[in-house]
Amino acid sequence: MLQIETPTLLLDKTRCLRNIDNMILRSTKAGCSLRPHFKTAQSLAIGKWFWERGVRQISVSSLQMAVYFAEGGWDDITVAFPVNILEGKRIKYLSQKCAKLQLLVESSSDVEQLDNLLEKPLGVFIKIDSGSRRSGIAAHNFEAVEKLLERIKICKKLIFKGFLTHAGHSYKARGTTEILAIQQQSIGLMRNLKSRFIKDCPSLILSAGDTPCCSVADDWAEIDELRPGNFTFYDVMQWQIGSCSLDDIAIATACPVVAKHPERLELVLYGGAVHLSKDSIVINGQTIFGLVAKLGKDAWELPDVNNYLRGLSQEHGIAKLSQSFFDEVVVGDVLAILPVHSCLNADLMRAYRDFEGRSYDHFGSYFR
Amino acid sequence: MLQIETPTLLLDKTRCLRNIDNMILRSTKAGCSLRPHFKTAQSLAIGKWFWERGVRQISVSSLQMAVYFAEGGWDDITVAFPVNILEGKRIKYLSQKCAKLQLLVESSSDVEQLDNLLEKPLGVFIKIDSGSRRSGIAAHNFEAVEKLLERIKICKKLIFKGFLTHAGHSYKARGTTEILAIQQQSIGLMRNLKSRFIKDCPSLILSAGDTPCCSVADDWAEIDELRPGNFTFYDVMQWQIGSCSLDDIAIATACPVVAKHPERLELVLYGGAVHLSKDSIVINGQTIFGLVAKLGKDAWELPDVNNYLRGLSQEHGIAKLSQSFFDEVVVGDVLAILPVHSCLNADLMRAYRDFEGRSYDHFGSYFR
Repeated sequence: MLQIETPTLLLDKTRCLRNIDNMILRSTKAGCSLRPHFKTAQSLAIGKWFWERGVRQISVSSLQMAVYFAEGGWDDITVAFPVNILEGKRIKYLSQKCAKLQLLVESSSDVEQLDNLLEKPLGVFIKIDSGSRRSGIAAHNFEAVEKLLERIKICKKLIFKGFLTHAGHSYKARGTTEILAIQQQSIGLMRNLKSRFIKDCPSLILSAGDTPCCSVADDWAEIDELRPGNFTFYDVMQWQIGSCSLDDIAIATACPVVAKHPERLELVLYGGAVHLSKDSIVINGQTIFGLVAKLGKDAWELPDVNNYLRGLSQEHGIAKLSQSFFDEVVVGDVLAILPVHSCLNADLMRAYRDFEGRSYDHFGSYFR
Repeated sequence: MLQIETPTLLLDKTRCLRNIDNMILRSTKAGCSLRPHFKTAQSLAIGKWFWERGVRQISVSSLQMAVYFAEGGWDDITVAFPVNILEGKRIKYLSQKCAKLQLLVESSSDVEQLDNLLEKPLGVFIKIDSGSRRSGIAAHNFEAVEKLLERIKICKKLIFKGFLTHAGHSYKARGTTEILAIQQQSIGLMRNLKSRFIKDCPSLILSAGDTPCCSVADDWAEIDELRPGNFTFYDVMQWQIGSCSLDDIAIATACPVVAKHPERLELVLYGGAVHLSKDSIVINGQTIFGLVAKLGKDAWELPDVNNYLRGLSQEHGIAKLSQSFFDEVVVGDVLAILPVHSCLNADLMRAYRDFEGRSYDHFGSYFR
């Protein structure tokens, strides 16, 4: 049995496997290949569960993370982040190590520098901004896309793979209708690009897929691959967006109760910003940093929105509870915090434990 | 010279030493002993600079961090966090290892359990809430304090040291007048406690001190020790509060530029929430996640509020720049991000580099 003394990241394997199976099924039904984004779990052990289900291609969010997974046996990796040309050595190493390595480009300077440094060819996607306004060429800017494509064509070491987007603006949606509207708007733009350039580049593919859209939308016609990541664990934010239920959230941080303040129904938990991250969400007008749940021997109970973290400092979490929940808790108990943002929570905790006490690795224990 | 390829936490040793010297001087002038909070730097190497200046007593924010510093040679440590009774073994180890170990208690259950598990005596402070409403007994609640004191007196292993507070509500202040008002209100409450209990406990001390109040206030009469931490590096939040100037900020994260978007004067930086934390602050109505500065060979230039991070995702930072700054930048350049919250930034980065390329350790590389 699991003995908890300090903040500990718990992994509910059953829920995690259900999320993985479900997303594999959804991708198959949609006729898309799944290239899960491993930036969420950042774990070879959890990656293995995908491998066992036939997944052979992944996305990662940094070249260092690509090295971690390449050395763990994955050899078809897309680094879904604008190529960082300063890491030339690492790019060369990865291009040798991986059977298939794909990088993102969005400017002729990226393309030129990348082509110059490589010895072995690799694939490139043109990063497309389909509305999130974070990175990429604006989807309607055919002229810029065409110019970059021409530049790629004269490269000796770059193989054009297609167009890649991340509709991150889906995180602002609330509910299925809003998610679907964003998904249709975003993939509509991608389809236009395909129509325009498929004659010139008949093997080009479209890569899309954020967790909200992939969790809800069924129509992915003409999209070739999906790259969601967060679905592996989901979190309170995804629940609020409408991507999942509270029962789908697969990680929680076990936090010791260190003080009780009955006059304001608040607990002080050992578990702060260095464990959970400062990501927050507004629910019913209240900014919250996580939901508080009771913790049993082999599961956490499903939380409700009346029990939440109202504040976080470096190591302290301040939990606001209903009277009945508050009355049951004593100092020295351990409660479970369901994260607002599971990727950042896992990144900070850098290791997982399941209820049998087994440990699962995280990239963060090795790098940085 | 320092070669930067990926996000790298830079330490400006000159500024850091100036901050340390200044706080030592302020404490001396105020007639208080300084017990710096090492939760900010979390570094034995940086701790050594305090040691070289005669500091022998420190605060930390967890028992694990206490172990790290105790094993690094510090032996007068206050764990400025509500005692976590689940870490009994670690408490026992520390009470053997440190000549002086002080823990915080605020309930009779803390006191009882702590007394039961100890073999060797240690010091306890009663944690007092002087207005921050995070943890501790309300400062005006003499009855509760007296009751707890009586409980401590019958313990065999607990030595009552005094009252300890953290006026965290100073973080809501803007400007000297507001900081001083909070400081006077908070230490006024602490003085009342001293007056009330000094007869019974003639050796009790008062411990106070958050960075804003310690950076600005001169009147600390009757306060025995100060425990600021953030001043070691300061940050954009402290500058906005009024604790420091921009020129006092002693760390910055070097981030490669990976994309430029001229139509909105934005850069994409390799540097996101996993490097900088999601802590933010509103300046001129704009939520910002850091200030963007030019980076030279041996220093960063002082930033201004027109150049800032407007958004952060897991690995991406989106910088909004003035036209003239934007025009100077090319993809592959490296810029410096001055953090909103240096403690969390350092906690995420887990190592420091100076401009000569020297490395400095961080607790996070060893634990968790």
